[in-house]
Amino acid sequence: MQARPEAVGDYLRGLQQRIVAALEAADGGTCVRDEWQKEPHEPLQGRGLTCILENGALFERAGCGFSQVSGPRLPPSATQHRPELAGAPFEAMGVSLVFHPRNPYVPTVHMNVRMLAALPAGAEATCWFGGGMDLTPYYGFEEDAVHFHRSCRDALAPFGDDKYPRFKKWCDEYFVLKHRNEQRGVGGVFFDDFSELGFDESFGMLRAVGDAFLPAYMPIVERRRAMPHGERERAFQLYRRGRYVEFNLVWDRGTHFGLQSGGRTESILLSMPPLASWSYRQVPAPGSPESALYSDFLVRREWL
Amino acid sequence: MQARPEAVGDYLRGLQQRIVAALEAADGGTCVRDEWQKEPHEPLQGRGLTCILENGALFERAGCGFSQVSGPRLPPSATQHRPELAGAPFEAMGVSLVFHPRNPYVPTVHMNVRMLAALPAGAEATCWFGGGMDLTPYYGFEEDAVHFHRSCRDALAPFGDDKYPRFKKWCDEYFVLKHRNEQRGVGGVFFDDFSELGFDESFGMLRAVGDAFLPAYMPIVERRRAMPHGERERAFQLYRRGRYVEFNLVWDRGTHFGLQSGGRTESILLSMPPLASWSYRQVPAPGSPESALYSDFLVRREWL
Repeated sequence: MQARPEAVGDYLRGLQQRIVAALEAADGGTCVRDEWQKEPHEPLQGRGLTCILENGALFERAGCGFSQVSGPRLPPSATQHRPELAGAPFEAMGVSLVFHPRNPYVPTVHMNVRMLAALPAGAEATCWFGGGMDLTPYYGFEEDAVHFHRSCRDALAPFGDDKYPRFKKWCDEYFVLKHRNEQRGVGGVFFDDFSELGFDESFGMLRAVGDAFLPAYMPIVERRRAMPHGERERAFQLYRRGRYVEFNLVWDRGTHFGLQSGGRTESILLSMPPLASWSYRQVPAPGSPESALYSDFLVRREWL
Repeated sequence: MQARPEAVGDYLRGLQQRIVAALEAADGGTCVRDEWQKEPHEPLQGRGLTCILENGALFERAGCGFSQVSGPRLPPSATQHRPELAGAPFEAMGVSLVFHPRNPYVPTVHMNVRMLAALPAGAEATCWFGGGMDLTPYYGFEEDAVHFHRSCRDALAPFGDDKYPRFKKWCDEYFVLKHRNEQRGVGGVFFDDFSELGFDESFGMLRAVGDAFLPAYMPIVERRRAMPHGERERAFQLYRRGRYVEFNLVWDRGTHFGLQSGGRTESILLSMPPLASWSYRQVPAPGSPESALYSDFLVRREWL
């Protein structure tokens, strides 16, 4: 059960390719593929491949990035509970995506799978895994939320019955706009610092989550993409996308600290919507589908 | 020279009224006036009047808020250098505004004037002042930047020749998007924790800044409001408004900590634009006016 960080890199690069291919097939458009590399003078070394489809027929903005960074010393916060690894060289890599569809009946989705490896000189690597996926509808459909959560649960089932409930709760607690007392969406799963099953099985669990993304999301897209909609639905979608911006810039640790600590801005901000609006105290009419989004979907619920 | 916090409240409420009247006169539309009050169970007591004009002919979204909060104990960060005031009851009040015009040739503007008062039992109040104003063009015009800065300098001149250069520098250093190495706009003035002239003169300086806002900004609006523009200018305006969102949600202390600490969300987010866009690595064509914005205006410059 030796840790093999390079196998994780191979998996993640392949996952990105599969997702980008599916994205392009569904949309009909083509992603820009942007390979980048940090300059030698920058504090962290790193490289990545950013793929983004903008202004597509199905997706208004859909980004999927792979990145890999390394540094000479793990930050103290990473080794509080593992003093023997304090100050070891490290490597971090991940695939992260956010898809913003054009049709307001198609939900926005986010998925991320990542690994952090401590590489102490002359000793074995130690790896932790993190990630998850969550769904953010503009108009709520129970069957969509159920399908998404069922996909997450089924993917995690081989790794223990506790995983889905634990990671579902973690997701609910993470993706919340505290300043509005609102969930970002209908949730999904989220986990971090995960190594409790040993390298092989923990990596297996990461792969299960990554592999579950397309079957969790694409059937929902296919079900909703042709639904007729008008100015009202579009206006509500733009308004709700403002909440996505608020969450990512104010509360999301990856985004906020990434921007504050010199991460690659354009890759971090792949998650931003193509267009978003704000207006003062917008309260939907009682009984409307917009009102049902708040009361029935942007709340913590057991979907299964 | 006894401190009179209540006189500051009177001034600020009057200033808000004058600004809102000028805003409505220029636009032809009417602000929503929303009086609010914190619930008794909330950690800080407070009230305010939020005025906002949305979807006007001239301004797409223009908010001007007055708020007043009080608490039983100053936070330790406020009294690091004044241990005799540690834990004293306090009051904070201010007027804050952001105007987002519709025409991309009219710049967005921000102004804020505020006071923090420590009210130790049985002793005199101690007041500190803060505020400033800054201008964010989408298309740069030297004469606009010069007029705005000259208005700031002239307003501060009676309080010492050092004030404008100090506060201009402070503004340049504060309104910067570090994650893009970009200034938010052409700057203006910014100051905080100011009490060095004693209560009467410091309050006089605050009034000078507040009173300078309309003559600093409105002539620029009048000069630009009828300039013809098309889809290209509109698209660039929406894209640049995304930067405004990024600054306010990631870097602005008032916004970020206000949202994280239970401030009134809808009032704090008056500053958000009505519509903003993001797109990947948008680089304007060399020699274009969009390119000149970055090279000639979103940099630290001496405008006078």
